[in-house]
Amino acid sequence: MAISLTEARTIIAKALEKGRELDLKPLSVVVLDSGGHVKAFEREDGASPGRFAIAHGKAYGSIMLGLAGTAQMQRAESQTYFMDAMNGLFGGRVVPVPGGVLVRNDADEVIGAVGVTGDSSDNDAIAAVAGIAAAGLTGEI
Amino acid sequence: MAISLTEARTIIAKALEKGRELDLKPLSVVVLDSGGHVKAFEREDGASPGRFAIAHGKAYGSIMLGLAGTAQMQRAESQTYFMDAMNGLFGGRVVPVPGGVLVRNDADEVIGAVGVTGDSSDNDAIAAVAGIAAAGLTGEI
Amino acid sequence: MAISLTEARTIIAKALEKGRELDLKPLSVVVLDSGGHVKAFEREDGASPGRFAIAHGKAYGSIMLGLAGTAQMQRAESQTYFMDAMNGLFGGRVVPVPGGVLVRNDADEVIGAVGVTGDSSDNDAIAAVAGIAAAGLTGEI
Amino acid sequence: MAISLTEARTIIAKALEKGRELDLKPLSVVVLDSGGHVKAFEREDGASPGRFAIAHGKAYGSIMLGLAGTAQMQRAESQTYFMDAMNGLFGGRVVPVPGGVLVRNDADEVIGAVGVTGDSSDNDAIAAVAGIAAAGLTGEI
Repeated sequence: MAISLTEARTIIAKALEKGRELDLKPLSVVVLDSGGHVKAFEREDGASPGRFAIAHGKAYGSIMLGLAGTAQMQRAESQTYFMDAMNGLFGGRVVPVPGGVLVRNDADEVIGAVGVTGDSSDNDAIAAVAGIAAAGLTGEI
Repeated sequence: MAISLTEARTIIAKALEKGRELDLKPLSVVVLDSGGHVKAFEREDGASPGRFAIAHGKAYGSIMLGLAGTAQMQRAESQTYFMDAMNGLFGGRVVPVPGGVLVRNDADEVIGAVGVTGDSSDNDAIAAVAGIAAAGLTGEI
Repeated sequence: MAISLTEARTIIAKALEKGRELDLKPLSVVVLDSGGHVKAFEREDGASPGRFAIAHGKAYGSIMLGLAGTAQMQRAESQTYFMDAMNGLFGGRVVPVPGGVLVRNDADEVIGAVGVTGDSSDNDAIAAVAGIAAAGLTGEI
Repeated sequence: MAISLTEARTIIAKALEKGRELDLKPLSVVVLDSGGHVKAFEREDGASPGRFAIAHGKAYGSIMLGLAGTAQMQRAESQTYFMDAMNGLFGGRVVPVPGGVLVRNDADEVIGAVGVTGDSSDNDAIAAVAGIAAAGLTGEI
């Protein structure tokens, strides 16, 4: 199953709502499909202009490697040259920190990824997971 | 005035609504701010995966050159090497055809650009203008 | 439905078999999934070393644009700067000629693309379609 | 002697078979010729979309440097800037970890390289060597 635009809209709306509830800094949220292609994105007023690339990099690396942000960060810390090599392969578009979250359906298949940026990486991940859960899907941080 | 997320959402929602009204193919719509940075994006179900890049290229070239898609296409047809040179400067990210639309406010300032792709270039531009008008702004195609 | 490795193997084996039957030059055949990512590839003995990139470019452009090779070639001939712009967006990886074939399932969804190179573009497309049909799928040239 | 498509097919089939035997995660296997050009590739169902690039990077670095993955990893750990420099030269396409395996014939000549990715780097190398041995060739990890 491909992730639908309706699901992507729910994920973004609810991730931003969670950010407001926790009083986080302005957030940016991207939803990618299972091939790593952008399905939807929103950047809140007040967020810095580079936030699309950062949100995208968190989600894109998650999809391409099949590893969410937390696992990527662990690999980056234990074997820096490996994540450097990944960025060489994928055009420098991999951001290996929390806030990149894999989206799984009921059959446990990866149907997309969410990238959130704007607050601390851990808070970014909390907002992402809230949005994914609101769409009836499961987030792997 | 910067373009707001609320305005961007209206532009996208109404551009997609116009596409459904005219029975166009699945559309993708991006809104950039006055610095050429992504504010919001949606890709309808059924659109091909590369549509973010195409929508972005239409809007990005419009902002960076201060020329909407129709004017860029005229330049590409009369002076191909000029648009080639622009693509050299801007990393190949300029798509010089209709569907890239400048967004002006009441003071006639450019506050952003919209890129629409999915149907014919002319239909893409019609959907973009409908969305921009619905947000109380003016589109220059 | 994602294209399976079993389907990809059938497509490649039967496209190569068609090439031998028609006495074509050594062929190279790639199968991409619906996100444009490589699923399988084979290059026959005697084919030149650059054939992976060419086969890939035919299939990759088909997926990203949602347009098979024949439609891309028509666009390249009528509006060269447009296909140049597409190559700017997609890193120079689009080869807009026949031999790039979209793969559709029974529900008419694009589940992948095949790229064949080695003989004339038209013969390449014939081999691709033969392989796709042998897998019980439909090729759009 | 150039590596043949028949040999490449055997390598891939037997590497994947070894992966199933050891219950590894879904694997992706590439075979490159002695010039570093792709001869054949397969990605098992369930593997993440970026696996072609990773498998390729393991094999490509092995060929271009004449050093298999284990030796590259040792160099990356002792002299990170050296492998960074290699990635500068080779367009970021070198992945310096086990799973990149040189293929030697009876005359001890390098006739190609295999890249395997999907499980731990060490398990990836085990699968690669099994495939190479099944083709009557010798793998250097």
